[in-house]
Amino acid sequence: MLERLKKEVLDANLQLPKHNLVTFTWGNVSGIDREQNLVVIKPSGVPYDELTIEDLVVVDLEGRIVEGTLRPSSDTPTHLALYRAFPTIGGVVHTHSPWATSWAQAGRPIPSLGTTHADYYYGEVPCTREMTQEEIDRAYELETGNVIIETFEKQGLDPAAMPGVLVFNHAPFCWGKNANEAVHNAVVLEEVAKMALHTFQLNPSVNPIQQFLLDKHYLRKHGKNAYYGQTKKTSEQTL
Amino acid sequence: MLERLKKEVLDANLQLPKHNLVTFTWGNVSGIDREQNLVVIKPSGVPYDELTIEDLVVVDLEGRIVEGTLRPSSDTPTHLALYRAFPTIGGVVHTHSPWATSWAQAGRPIPSLGTTHADYYYGEVPCTREMTQEEIDRAYELETGNVIIETFEKQGLDPAAMPGVLVFNHAPFCWGKNANEAVHNAVVLEEVAKMALHTFQLNPSVNPIQQFLLDKHYLRKHGKNAYYGQTKKTSEQTL
Amino acid sequence: MLERLKKEVLDANLQLPKHNLVTFTWGNVSGIDREQNLVVIKPSGVPYDELTIEDLVVVDLEGRIVEGTLRPSSDTPTHLALYRAFPTIGGVVHTHSPWATSWAQAGRPIPSLGTTHADYYYGEVPCTREMTQEEIDRAYELETGNVIIETFEKQGLDPAAMPGVLVFNHAPFCWGKNANEAVHNAVVLEEVAKMALHTFQLNPSVNPIQQFLLDKHYLRKHGKNAYYGQTKKTSEQTL
Amino acid sequence: MLERLKKEVLDANLQLPKHNLVTFTWGNVSGIDREQNLVVIKPSGVPYDELTIEDLVVVDLEGRIVEGTLRPSSDTPTHLALYRAFPTIGGVVHTHSPWATSWAQAGRPIPSLGTTHADYYYGEVPCTREMTQEEIDRAYELETGNVIIETFEKQGLDPAAMPGVLVFNHAPFCWGKNANEAVHNAVVLEEVAKMALHTFQLNPSVNPIQQFLLDKHYLRKHGKNAYYGQTKKTSEQTL
Repeated sequence: MLERLKKEVLDANLQLPKHNLVTFTWGNVSGIDREQNLVVIKPSGVPYDELTIEDLVVVDLEGRIVEGTLRPSSDTPTHLALYRAFPTIGGVVHTHSPWATSWAQAGRPIPSLGTTHADYYYGEVPCTREMTQEEIDRAYELETGNVIIETFEKQGLDPAAMPGVLVFNHAPFCWGKNANEAVHNAVVLEEVAKMALHTFQLNPSVNPIQQFLLDKHYLRKHGKNAYYGQTKKTSEQTL
Repeated sequence: MLERLKKEVLDANLQLPKHNLVTFTWGNVSGIDREQNLVVIKPSGVPYDELTIEDLVVVDLEGRIVEGTLRPSSDTPTHLALYRAFPTIGGVVHTHSPWATSWAQAGRPIPSLGTTHADYYYGEVPCTREMTQEEIDRAYELETGNVIIETFEKQGLDPAAMPGVLVFNHAPFCWGKNANEAVHNAVVLEEVAKMALHTFQLNPSVNPIQQFLLDKHYLRKHGKNAYYGQTKKTSEQTL
Repeated sequence: MLERLKKEVLDANLQLPKHNLVTFTWGNVSGIDREQNLVVIKPSGVPYDELTIEDLVVVDLEGRIVEGTLRPSSDTPTHLALYRAFPTIGGVVHTHSPWATSWAQAGRPIPSLGTTHADYYYGEVPCTREMTQEEIDRAYELETGNVIIETFEKQGLDPAAMPGVLVFNHAPFCWGKNANEAVHNAVVLEEVAKMALHTFQLNPSVNPIQQFLLDKHYLRKHGKNAYYGQTKKTSEQTL
Repeated sequence: MLERLKKEVLDANLQLPKHNLVTFTWGNVSGIDREQNLVVIKPSGVPYDELTIEDLVVVDLEGRIVEGTLRPSSDTPTHLALYRAFPTIGGVVHTHSPWATSWAQAGRPIPSLGTTHADYYYGEVPCTREMTQEEIDRAYELETGNVIIETFEKQGLDPAAMPGVLVFNHAPFCWGKNANEAVHNAVVLEEVAKMALHTFQLNPSVNPIQQFLLDKHYLRKHGKNAYYGQTKKTSEQTL
């Protein structure tokens, strides 16, 4: 079952080491079939260079294993919370990519400092609040998802236009229409995080870009008036 | 038509990932045939590892497609504005290379802090002013070219001796006598941008190098008294 | 003799260049057989790409060569001191990996700033005090081990939960249940050191993570209630 | 003639790109035959991936070409000045390696902040004074050598124990007993420069290591009491 989705999720997982987003197995990607409400996710603890399609685990939206002989990623409850709360997303990725993780550890959202950022993230990438001991002790991975959702609700953010978040003290989660686009956005976030740190070093009082430049760049790549790439839109578009 | 130029432009585009100047397809190179006033440019949205010579697009200086089945890079109007205004250049490249982009996001020109810089850029690499909403809404990519040209006019810069610029909030554009030299200058700018940031971290009050050292280095590699490399000048000369 | 241990130690040594932890031959890994009290260690001065299993040296806990024709690593007395003082460890690694070494040179312990750190190091990674001239002149490598042991005793640290240290003015030593896990922890320390520096650049007044988050992350990967990875625990577990 | 030396110099030049010390052809290595007083050096402007043994140029100590059809590196007068002034050296290398060059651009010597530094450089790596217009206009490359020699004379430095220098506003020159050791020292300098910058970021008031630690590390790798590596000393010794 779900052979096509499994292949997408496998390919997306294998892109993480290719793009230098992971050390060892510090990352995981999932994808969802919205018709069947089933999620395919990386198993816990399997190195990327040994990962095969048979290792992937299928779970339902409550986390019950539907197919697979291995344990799913321990971050599965976070992925599922995001799928339940954000109906427009089709893929989720978690990594400890070092530049984005440094911002998460610093507890700082990443402001939109240039067009690279604006091409993918429509505004400041948020950072969650600190989690409480009660949340951590009770259901850590589920509550990690909840604190992300709370952040988006409080700030009125659309997960389709803001496809990622920094979990305070932890690391980024990103998403997209499918598993491949989620990883694509994770690569972008890492690059944006790196450049933002260097931008602040060069100009500590730098301001975010103007709203009209943010609109221009985001909207020339997204929505019905987008004019990037070829007629058939791909997820890897030129600038 | 233009087979030789197409091959040059293809080769130059493929140098971008080789020199780690691009993430995904965030870059594009073009070259011009000055006799026919035709420009060969990368198509929009085609990944580098799939790019073939047939994908390249030929446009005239007003942007009309003369040959090719794909859409040209969305940055084509910027390239064309530069070709029209700077008659001595034969190739243009745009990337979001991270060190140079960090300076562009910081809104800081890159002063000439050493001989690596002076070997290729005859003085401070300029940064454009912020673009207005009116410019961005009307014809963003064309106006990006115009703000570069305005910067060169106001500062009295010779594009042959200053083969690159930082577009504020955005990223660098570089150029050269041909597409290969344009990419060569983009590689240099990235290296110079990286070293300049670290130089300022080591010495925040550092001054640009003296004019006579700038002259010495730039002129031993450029112009009639150049004495670098072998008799037949190449674009990749030893130091 | 000790063929299996030798193979483990060879493999662990070869992981150092693979993970970019060493320049030239600046590193060495050892492993111990606790039943025979024999240690297998890299020979001094042999490049990694020439290292074979026959080159490895077997020494007893007092440093007497039991097998092998080459001189053992000059850091052997440090390794042996650690094995004698820390009975729960089975492998030791020393590198000059650049990020961790920068902290060692700065004389700063690395606070636990995020969950990546907490997954492997249960609290702040300590930095030793400055060694005295007398210690250095008398038995430098042995005293390097002693100053590490002193640091752990004074701070009441458990080497099983704190598998590494920064030797002031010098570089890190790491360890683990076996040679492979020691190298694994060295890779983690380098990544953690890099992110901690960037975290401080983004937020100079950042605090260590809360104790309950440290507990949560460390204990979900270690001890009897660990729930990471598959049933049969591996040393490379997913996050 | 000089076939063995040529092979050494070719090999040493090819190590520069392998160790990421050069962009394009920004570097050159030479070696000297002290009996014949002949120097083998890289030709100017030849890319490393095309360099063959036939391209190398043989010059005497006054710079007259003795063999070879290509022009020698334009930095040849600097190399020759060093060979004439420093009789114990057998190889010279010049690169624009980015970390060391950042220190050179900042005009700061690199203090000895740790044992990695002390293993190869016996004290602070000096930075030359600014060159005068007269020096630059008259005989730039020769005077670059002279300002290095002046720096060593004024500071009473032994080039055998301090195998490198930062030329202010420019980049490093390194040397050694032969071409291979010169490149080895250039790799070390780059690594040391990188770590020293990060060390200062972590601890702006850090002090150089104590003299007795410097002595210990330098002398356990150099001189008659060295105890590193195997009996037959190699230039790549373990730590």
